[in-house]
Amino acid sequence: MPHFDLPLDQLRGYRSQVAEPDGFQEFWDATLAQARGFDLDAVFTPVDSGLRTVATSDVVFRGFAGAPVRAWLHLPAHREGPLPGVVEYAGYGGGRGLAHENTVWAAAGYAHLVMDTRGQGSGWRGGVTADAAPEAGDPAAPGFMTRGIADPDSYYYRRVFTDAVRAVEALRAHDGVDPDRVAVAGGSQGGGIALAVSGLVDDLSAVMADVPFLCDFPRALSVADSDPYQEVVRYLKVHRDRVDQVMRTLAHFDGSVMARRAAAPALFSVGLMDGVCPPSTVFAAYNAYAGAKDIAVYPYNGHEGGAEHHQVEKFRWLAATL
Amino acid sequence: MPHFDLPLDQLRGYRSQVAEPDGFQEFWDATLAQARGFDLDAVFTPVDSGLRTVATSDVVFRGFAGAPVRAWLHLPAHREGPLPGVVEYAGYGGGRGLAHENTVWAAAGYAHLVMDTRGQGSGWRGGVTADAAPEAGDPAAPGFMTRGIADPDSYYYRRVFTDAVRAVEALRAHDGVDPDRVAVAGGSQGGGIALAVSGLVDDLSAVMADVPFLCDFPRALSVADSDPYQEVVRYLKVHRDRVDQVMRTLAHFDGSVMARRAAAPALFSVGLMDGVCPPSTVFAAYNAYAGAKDIAVYPYNGHEGGAEHHQVEKFRWLAATL
Amino acid sequence: MPHFDLPLDQLRGYRSQVAEPDGFQEFWDATLAQARGFDLDAVFTPVDSGLRTVATSDVVFRGFAGAPVRAWLHLPAHREGPLPGVVEYAGYGGGRGLAHENTVWAAAGYAHLVMDTRGQGSGWRGGVTADAAPEAGDPAAPGFMTRGIADPDSYYYRRVFTDAVRAVEALRAHDGVDPDRVAVAGGSQGGGIALAVSGLVDDLSAVMADVPFLCDFPRALSVADSDPYQEVVRYLKVHRDRVDQVMRTLAHFDGSVMARRAAAPALFSVGLMDGVCPPSTVFAAYNAYAGAKDIAVYPYNGHEGGAEHHQVEKFRWLAATL
Amino acid sequence: MPHFDLPLDQLRGYRSQVAEPDGFQEFWDATLAQARGFDLDAVFTPVDSGLRTVATSDVVFRGFAGAPVRAWLHLPAHREGPLPGVVEYAGYGGGRGLAHENTVWAAAGYAHLVMDTRGQGSGWRGGVTADAAPEAGDPAAPGFMTRGIADPDSYYYRRVFTDAVRAVEALRAHDGVDPDRVAVAGGSQGGGIALAVSGLVDDLSAVMADVPFLCDFPRALSVADSDPYQEVVRYLKVHRDRVDQVMRTLAHFDGSVMARRAAAPALFSVGLMDGVCPPSTVFAAYNAYAGAKDIAVYPYNGHEGGAEHHQVEKFRWLAATL
Amino acid sequence: MPHFDLPLDQLRGYRSQVAEPDGFQEFWDATLAQARGFDLDAVFTPVDSGLRTVATSDVVFRGFAGAPVRAWLHLPAHREGPLPGVVEYAGYGGGRGLAHENTVWAAAGYAHLVMDTRGQGSGWRGGVTADAAPEAGDPAAPGFMTRGIADPDSYYYRRVFTDAVRAVEALRAHDGVDPDRVAVAGGSQGGGIALAVSGLVDDLSAVMADVPFLCDFPRALSVADSDPYQEVVRYLKVHRDRVDQVMRTLAHFDGSVMARRAAAPALFSVGLMDGVCPPSTVFAAYNAYAGAKDIAVYPYNGHEGGAEHHQVEKFRWLAATL
Amino acid sequence: MPHFDLPLDQLRGYRSQVAEPDGFQEFWDATLAQARGFDLDAVFTPVDSGLRTVATSDVVFRGFAGAPVRAWLHLPAHREGPLPGVVEYAGYGGGRGLAHENTVWAAAGYAHLVMDTRGQGSGWRGGVTADAAPEAGDPAAPGFMTRGIADPDSYYYRRVFTDAVRAVEALRAHDGVDPDRVAVAGGSQGGGIALAVSGLVDDLSAVMADVPFLCDFPRALSVADSDPYQEVVRYLKVHRDRVDQVMRTLAHFDGSVMARRAAAPALFSVGLMDGVCPPSTVFAAYNAYAGAKDIAVYPYNGHEGGAEHHQVEKFRWLAATL
Repeated sequence: MPHFDLPLDQLRGYRSQVAEPDGFQEFWDATLAQARGFDLDAVFTPVDSGLRTVATSDVVFRGFAGAPVRAWLHLPAHREGPLPGVVEYAGYGGGRGLAHENTVWAAAGYAHLVMDTRGQGSGWRGGVTADAAPEAGDPAAPGFMTRGIADPDSYYYRRVFTDAVRAVEALRAHDGVDPDRVAVAGGSQGGGIALAVSGLVDDLSAVMADVPFLCDFPRALSVADSDPYQEVVRYLKVHRDRVDQVMRTLAHFDGSVMARRAAAPALFSVGLMDGVCPPSTVFAAYNAYAGAKDIAVYPYNGHEGGAEHHQVEKFRWLAATL
Repeated sequence: MPHFDLPLDQLRGYRSQVAEPDGFQEFWDATLAQARGFDLDAVFTPVDSGLRTVATSDVVFRGFAGAPVRAWLHLPAHREGPLPGVVEYAGYGGGRGLAHENTVWAAAGYAHLVMDTRGQGSGWRGGVTADAAPEAGDPAAPGFMTRGIADPDSYYYRRVFTDAVRAVEALRAHDGVDPDRVAVAGGSQGGGIALAVSGLVDDLSAVMADVPFLCDFPRALSVADSDPYQEVVRYLKVHRDRVDQVMRTLAHFDGSVMARRAAAPALFSVGLMDGVCPPSTVFAAYNAYAGAKDIAVYPYNGHEGGAEHHQVEKFRWLAATL
Repeated sequence: MPHFDLPLDQLRGYRSQVAEPDGFQEFWDATLAQARGFDLDAVFTPVDSGLRTVATSDVVFRGFAGAPVRAWLHLPAHREGPLPGVVEYAGYGGGRGLAHENTVWAAAGYAHLVMDTRGQGSGWRGGVTADAAPEAGDPAAPGFMTRGIADPDSYYYRRVFTDAVRAVEALRAHDGVDPDRVAVAGGSQGGGIALAVSGLVDDLSAVMADVPFLCDFPRALSVADSDPYQEVVRYLKVHRDRVDQVMRTLAHFDGSVMARRAAAPALFSVGLMDGVCPPSTVFAAYNAYAGAKDIAVYPYNGHEGGAEHHQVEKFRWLAATL
Repeated sequence: MPHFDLPLDQLRGYRSQVAEPDGFQEFWDATLAQARGFDLDAVFTPVDSGLRTVATSDVVFRGFAGAPVRAWLHLPAHREGPLPGVVEYAGYGGGRGLAHENTVWAAAGYAHLVMDTRGQGSGWRGGVTADAAPEAGDPAAPGFMTRGIADPDSYYYRRVFTDAVRAVEALRAHDGVDPDRVAVAGGSQGGGIALAVSGLVDDLSAVMADVPFLCDFPRALSVADSDPYQEVVRYLKVHRDRVDQVMRTLAHFDGSVMARRAAAPALFSVGLMDGVCPPSTVFAAYNAYAGAKDIAVYPYNGHEGGAEHHQVEKFRWLAATL
Repeated sequence: MPHFDLPLDQLRGYRSQVAEPDGFQEFWDATLAQARGFDLDAVFTPVDSGLRTVATSDVVFRGFAGAPVRAWLHLPAHREGPLPGVVEYAGYGGGRGLAHENTVWAAAGYAHLVMDTRGQGSGWRGGVTADAAPEAGDPAAPGFMTRGIADPDSYYYRRVFTDAVRAVEALRAHDGVDPDRVAVAGGSQGGGIALAVSGLVDDLSAVMADVPFLCDFPRALSVADSDPYQEVVRYLKVHRDRVDQVMRTLAHFDGSVMARRAAAPALFSVGLMDGVCPPSTVFAAYNAYAGAKDIAVYPYNGHEGGAEHHQVEKFRWLAATL
Repeated sequence: MPHFDLPLDQLRGYRSQVAEPDGFQEFWDATLAQARGFDLDAVFTPVDSGLRTVATSDVVFRGFAGAPVRAWLHLPAHREGPLPGVVEYAGYGGGRGLAHENTVWAAAGYAHLVMDTRGQGSGWRGGVTADAAPEAGDPAAPGFMTRGIADPDSYYYRRVFTDAVRAVEALRAHDGVDPDRVAVAGGSQGGGIALAVSGLVDDLSAVMADVPFLCDFPRALSVADSDPYQEVVRYLKVHRDRVDQVMRTLAHFDGSVMARRAAAPALFSVGLMDGVCPPSTVFAAYNAYAGAKDIAVYPYNGHEGGAEHHQVEKFRWLAATL
């Protein structure tokens, strides 16, 4: 059934039942402090992407536990003065891709940093960053969703979210960038990461989360009919005795919890026929979001959401916001 | 089975059994002459696409029977002198899209014209050009493949190929373009159209046809397991008495026939697991292609073919060729 | 889930939220007046269908904008005096078929006219009537549901419904038919067309609408999980900015609106597991139907509904009604 | 792949490797003699089908082991003198249906007997005849294909084929029928039964077998990708030690064996994309058929084969043959 | 949607609307009395299963109408004194299997009788017991669910449930078994049979029903999306006039009715994502169960339910209960 | 098509084209030497599995790089003297399971060690052993097939095969086991591991490989239509430039290479409709196997192969061989 989730008027009032877990603040404070114990060491190396209007650098910086994380930095080839910046996170399974693959924010006049997602990048857009962590080999279902899920400390997204916070710092470290005008953005997993960063970094200027993933896990596991949420379901099918344990871990990474700590203005988008990131899970985060906010609703779209049509909205919104 | 078609060594020698139909030359000469009986009337109207590194114009020109055809022209915002150009045709079901959607050749330093495909543009990338022709409402199976298929004169692709030839003329008509250095390009249907143009326009400088569609129809109808080739199969399931008639029509539009008339250097690509445009149909056109040629073989790819990986190859090849 | 729609007791009270659009009456008055500005020119040419108990004629009459529309007229080979008649409309994708294909009402003693649906007839039962209209080539998703959907004037079903009204006139024009005893009938799209005719023709004697299509579009787009309703969803997926415009067009053709104007006695049928024409959309039309009415509910059937079992009900009901 | 079976030129020469089993003649002689040990007791009871041009009788006669088998006899309502007749057998899962459902041969001027298939008739067209036999409850996979498959004596189709022979006798026993002009016909399973009758009854006048089932079992189990042949595959998946035993049973019922004994003129049809009754299995029977023969080849059709298009061919062929 | 059925808190209060049919008690009293009119004749023949720690006997006893039913009896190879016993019934489509296939209760120290299900055993685990009954060949949809469904007297599960009661008697008849400590158990169909036996045999010591089938048929036909419940839906799709008749038959075999008569302590299990035996149908039986009871809820499991994880629960529960 | 691979007579002669890579011997010598640089430290801790006829111990030993690997050791509860042993490896995605889950070889009188597969055990049978290795987080497609695939040194199966060799040593280290009579066994991935061990351990007494995985990778990637082989295809779809590199890695782990070094008697099995481990890949290993060998061919089975039917064959064969 196309509209399988709650009707729109109920979505607008829907609230997740996930509570912020005890020790949430301390957990993330300690995590980020640990990462910042390593120098950022952001290095920018120009490459020839084949494009002429955009200048691209290969980026490496230190993320979680100081491990190297890769990114691309795209800048307009012709530019003057420091630029406002956009840090973009990738959808599930993809990496930063090839140097020319995704330069839209640079083409629109911004400094555009595309972060590689550790371990990912063999599903659609390629990636090169390893998930260098002892827990990476813990028993898990295929995919990244249950990697280290037994505990918040070992969970995969602890490392990813930390990398993402450090990526903002890496962009700000570039001398072509105005560090006071930085947005984070992403679709699906990228949107979920952007929401996490919105709750973990105080001084962002804007957040754009399209059809965000990683929100309201209990609801998501109940209504999403496909991967990647179903990876957790498959894990729990086998590990029947770990439901509470897994739910406790996930609460530390839930976009509907992170959003309560956010302050920057945010633009969300949602597809009402999205079976991958169901609309109720998106509204769970949106309704909880503590900053100024707006949401674009695409009633007949699935997980593609607003796509390029919404890109136009984002061009306008970001120009007005940043 | 992933590798469902012939093994690669047989593909390299495979030849289509489609003969050039009698009157083929006259058919196309008359068709193009008729179209050229109308002024081209190419009009370029600047638009704000949201991008800053690329300048875009809305284009309208007269195509088949003088009907208006739309396109985008993208140019690097900072440029000097006339540029070499690329005319790009869209994959099946898509149109020219929004103004910022597809600007890669402009970003790479070329004048980049993206033609709308008449009637299409409601399947993935949007379009706005009508298939303004009396035959558009003839009984046909859903889709564009059997529209007017009863006769070469009324067949849908007669109109599309003519538009495509005129699109080359429209690009050449722009004063920022070097008319002696124009390439045509496209993937899937766009590749099929590019091949048709390679056979219908004498003085092209380069042809890039990725996983081209519309090649070696009899083979395609036998081995392709999905749309759009299956649209013809569904039509013939009902119209059991029109097999020969339909095959005669299709021979006038077959990329493996068109390729025999081509002269420009060409770069093909093929995915050996491509069930949409099976590798034997691609090699049917490649092996018949009369100009200088090369083909990139992606052994474990389906219809996505080389995608962005192959884009890098095209950057290199076109820079060396044009 | 087999029973995916509302439970039966709620279905019996369900009401569509589609309002009759402003100017509806004028729109249809003008449309039919325009068509009637052309002579009907109904011509009946006997053919040999291979059957001996039924005599069949090839029919052509003028439909929308005077364009020719084809049909079959079947009469019992042995008959006396003028017969009551049944005009039957085809399901989506089918045409009138071959001369012997569908003669059941003639075999039951009626004059039976089977109308070809313009443009259709390449999906299951063959057809030969073109959708001869300038708008036929407007950008649309494959299929007929979005052809000309940008405006009520250009919408495909404006032409089809007009043809259908003229088909009643064509049957009445035959001298073997009693023009005061004419029913309209059809299943799925045919049922939707019959409902439209029930609202557009005042003096019908009976209406039989099985699992009717084209009813309560907003609900249908929300709950139907397959084509043809999904064609509109696919269109709106791309043309995200046209939702209101499309809904306005569709309201002019909605069976739940048409039914409010009907007067003839009607027999509906519905399958409670019908994912193509969901039961709530059928009840939306049934509950709104202004004439005497009954509905046969098939609790464990999908879109096949009552099929031949219901045909027996229709034999009885029509004999008692006409 | 649409054309998954042998190419047409190889199909025309293809021969089944199934040999006639020892004792085949004796097996069938004894089987039919046993059945004929019971009186036929064909009783014809007029019913009101709702049709006026065709007069229908409910038929009951004694089939295998004297058990009652039901059928419909349809005659043109207006007729003179004894008519040639057609005995029609149903496709898999269907029964004789309702009284008005299938009267096409009567409408075409023949006496038309539609036999119920014992046990079947709950899948698509309804049926009422029980498979009254002690072996009916033997362990078997769901469906009819493996019922009693352990031995030719207990196999389900021994009973069905015997019923089918007796059905010819029942039609001949009606005084409105010319017993010297009787054809047998059917599609899919009905075609397989018709082929069996062609080998078991000496004095038939014509045989029409469309996309026949039950032919060249070893080939069918290797290439058919769907039910009902797959029922046997599923049975053998569990009963891994009965492959030879099952193949021996099936050889007694194989259309490619039966066809070697046929004498009446025959018209076959085949769809080259038929995954249910693959073309090689149809040609196995056709190429073995010992009587005069022709075959209509539908290159782009699946199991629907020629359908109503081929019905026109059968009208012509039967009129010329009978 | 994974959680397609009622939420857990509503499941805990859900009640089936199926009433015990009139004459239910008499129907079953007469049925069992008829079966007990035959001697049980339980015969135990040792076989070599290949195992060394478990000793297995081939069992045959007289079931419904005195027909032979097969089973395996597994005993620990090293044992002292009479053992408590478990009679286990198989899931749909399976039989008793090979001698070594399922010996878990014997390995755990119990006398373990695995009953063959008449007619079944060609779908996954093999079987050898025929459904020797005249009604076995009645018209029915493929599968066992609609065999003889026209009447409670002829319904397939009348015979199966009677066999199952007699199987308890057969186990008790073995001199290595303590007849006062006998449990019944099974998953899916086996669970449904165990529930039936819980209502038909007074002096059981324990009942273990995992994801039981055959419960609350009207609900099941509305929400189950797959076989075997869908077999009944398919039957009713064709036999549209037998809905009430079929529902009346099924009420005599409904686990939610049987459970009201149970007295032995019971352990249920349920998977909240089970689309084969939906959770509401399991809770319909559980909530109605008249004896002491507990239920293990597996929130992220489908029809596999608790599987080996739940086996550990059963080891503990049965040791504490028996 | 059920029989999608080569016909059986060609399978019997089929040879893989994979050559033993240069340095293969040294690679494995060094790998095993490195692992044996750590003490085996096999520890056996009795647990209560719930079973009474089998005594089970939790096992931990040091595998690749000395990391802990878990297993179960099952022994008959009543036994005398040292027993012959079977080391069993699990199918893809499964772990050692719960203590009672898989004890068949102990029930048959053998010492039965079930090794956990590092990282796996969240797909069907649970597991607890981590893939403790720095390379575990390298960019890879979901699943285990491409983990560390960039190089033989980092490839996942290097670690698994080493664990498997050490598991044989762990079983031999138990004082209830006769170290001179040890077999290895497994199905699918377990069969592939068993084949690897057959090539890496000189003094095995028997090898049982059912429908083995990890054989003849180039062929497998060409013909297998499902996971896990498709994981590699998906990886290569993205990493188009690593085909040769990946093939080089895989050659070090290919069962068709390993088999050339085997010496112990072996029993294989194969399902001719197996789309997961296609029959040609199984025969590639079987035909290359250097020891005494036999293969059971199941013509109508898929990846389930001979299952419990073949278990009986293995009981017989192992008793005769060991």
